[in-house]
Amino acid sequence: MKVYYECGACFIRQAREAMDLATDDDELKINIMNDIFKFLSENYNKNASGNKVGSALHRMIKEKTACEDPYIKEKALGNKIALEILEKVQKLLKKDNSLENYIKIAIVGNILDFGALELDFNHQELIFDNLNKELAINNIDELKEAISKHKELLYLVDNTGEIVFDKLLIEKLLSLGLDITVVVKEKPILNDACLEDAVAIGLDKIAKITSLGTDSVGIIYEEASDDFKKIFDNADFIIAKGLGNYEGLTEINLENKDVFCLLCAKCSAIAKDIGVEEKENVLLKL
Amino acid sequence: MKVYYECGACFIRQAREAMDLATDDDELKINIMNDIFKFLSENYNKNASGNKVGSALHRMIKEKTACEDPYIKEKALGNKIALEILEKVQKLLKKDNSLENYIKIAIVGNILDFGALELDFNHQELIFDNLNKELAINNIDELKEAISKHKELLYLVDNTGEIVFDKLLIEKLLSLGLDITVVVKEKPILNDACLEDAVAIGLDKIAKITSLGTDSVGIIYEEASDDFKKIFDNADFIIAKGLGNYEGLTEINLENKDVFCLLCAKCSAIAKDIGVEEKENVLLKL
Repeated sequence: MKVYYECGACFIRQAREAMDLATDDDELKINIMNDIFKFLSENYNKNASGNKVGSALHRMIKEKTACEDPYIKEKALGNKIALEILEKVQKLLKKDNSLENYIKIAIVGNILDFGALELDFNHQELIFDNLNKELAINNIDELKEAISKHKELLYLVDNTGEIVFDKLLIEKLLSLGLDITVVVKEKPILNDACLEDAVAIGLDKIAKITSLGTDSVGIIYEEASDDFKKIFDNADFIIAKGLGNYEGLTEINLENKDVFCLLCAKCSAIAKDIGVEEKENVLLKL
Repeated sequence: MKVYYECGACFIRQAREAMDLATDDDELKINIMNDIFKFLSENYNKNASGNKVGSALHRMIKEKTACEDPYIKEKALGNKIALEILEKVQKLLKKDNSLENYIKIAIVGNILDFGALELDFNHQELIFDNLNKELAINNIDELKEAISKHKELLYLVDNTGEIVFDKLLIEKLLSLGLDITVVVKEKPILNDACLEDAVAIGLDKIAKITSLGTDSVGIIYEEASDDFKKIFDNADFIIAKGLGNYEGLTEINLENKDVFCLLCAKCSAIAKDIGVEEKENVLLKL
């Protein structure tokens, strides 16, 4: 996905958030913001790839603030809160344990910005609303066909916290006979899940875990490690969570691969690109 | 006032808003956003004056979109809604017609972003809350002293809509024997009041109206017309509304002038600069 007009302001909003988490030195932040303006003046144009620009900005912030993991607290809190909700979610899934419901729950995980939530947040209403809402694009038949056709699945996760709900879907997919490899980030970026975050919720106990080999926003093929590129090249069935992975996958040649994106169209750029309304949920075959 | 760290992201947020109002051409908007990034990379640093940078950005947007008045609809709607509320406000002021209450009402006008409001917005609650709230800085005694000392007052207005409430305060000040000149913008910028907006609510019937001679965000002395500079140089009593005027006045030598700012500290940068909490209201003698 190429950048949309609105991505410009969103890069800056996100950069500010990351800087606020990384340092209290306002003079340093003014200087970094200035560097970011310079970088964007050179790299933000209609042919730019959104997650390449975003990845560069977050790396710049981490390097210049010397803070390797600005979202470290948010990530731990994300897993904690998601685990507290888990039991209720499991009860809901007992009532209707269809694959589609597991898909919806995994998307709810993508909607909940756990790091930003208070502990008394009314998650129940949000979960119910999204379980009752139809998927705006629902390629569940194509997904079921892919599940019956393939033996192996590459599952690209997105955020910490969200992975607690991914684990439920992954368990469901395992029960359908798939051999699953979960892909995390090599190093921290935003609140994306790394190996330690996946291990913290026991994902390593149920599936193989591998890493992109880099710290990009979503998948960026050229930036991934050679090891990961081999895994990706050999994969013919992929499920990917979240906006960054959608942005990245749509820039990769996916010929001969069954690739499904599970996400909530949180922003107008993604919504336009997919052709749905903002805040709609999709199970989309690319 | 020099820029704070958070102004960087706010410039971009505001630029996006203005561009969205000015044009639907997304490719043009990407190009302008890129120009803005370039401008900021060259002009956003710790010594930059906030409203100079902001003014330049808004001029750039108006010029490059060939839209002279992006906020034209918002401004008309602002006056319309404020006039609809007016009667209720006047009743409140009948109950307590102290100068301080008129000051508070004028600040409420600065809080209400009329253009963004729905017609059924619960303005009453907002007005009551702010009338009951103490001013975080309250230089009312100094203001009363200045009123008794001076014959002439320069009143720098801010937004359209808000000026409906300013008119109430101006009438009150007129009744205290002051000769008042109201200062508007020469050309449109943001939703700031120009001559036609002031005339639309009859401000010209009760006071002299003059213009800054330019379209800056708040007052920027160097950018004002020679005519206005003369008026300003001769003024020894000034009341100024809103953030832009505070930003500008704090960059001007105000020796031998009694200058009062009436505003709500809507953003963290202004709040820090004044030394109050965000969203607090102040009647501040500079």
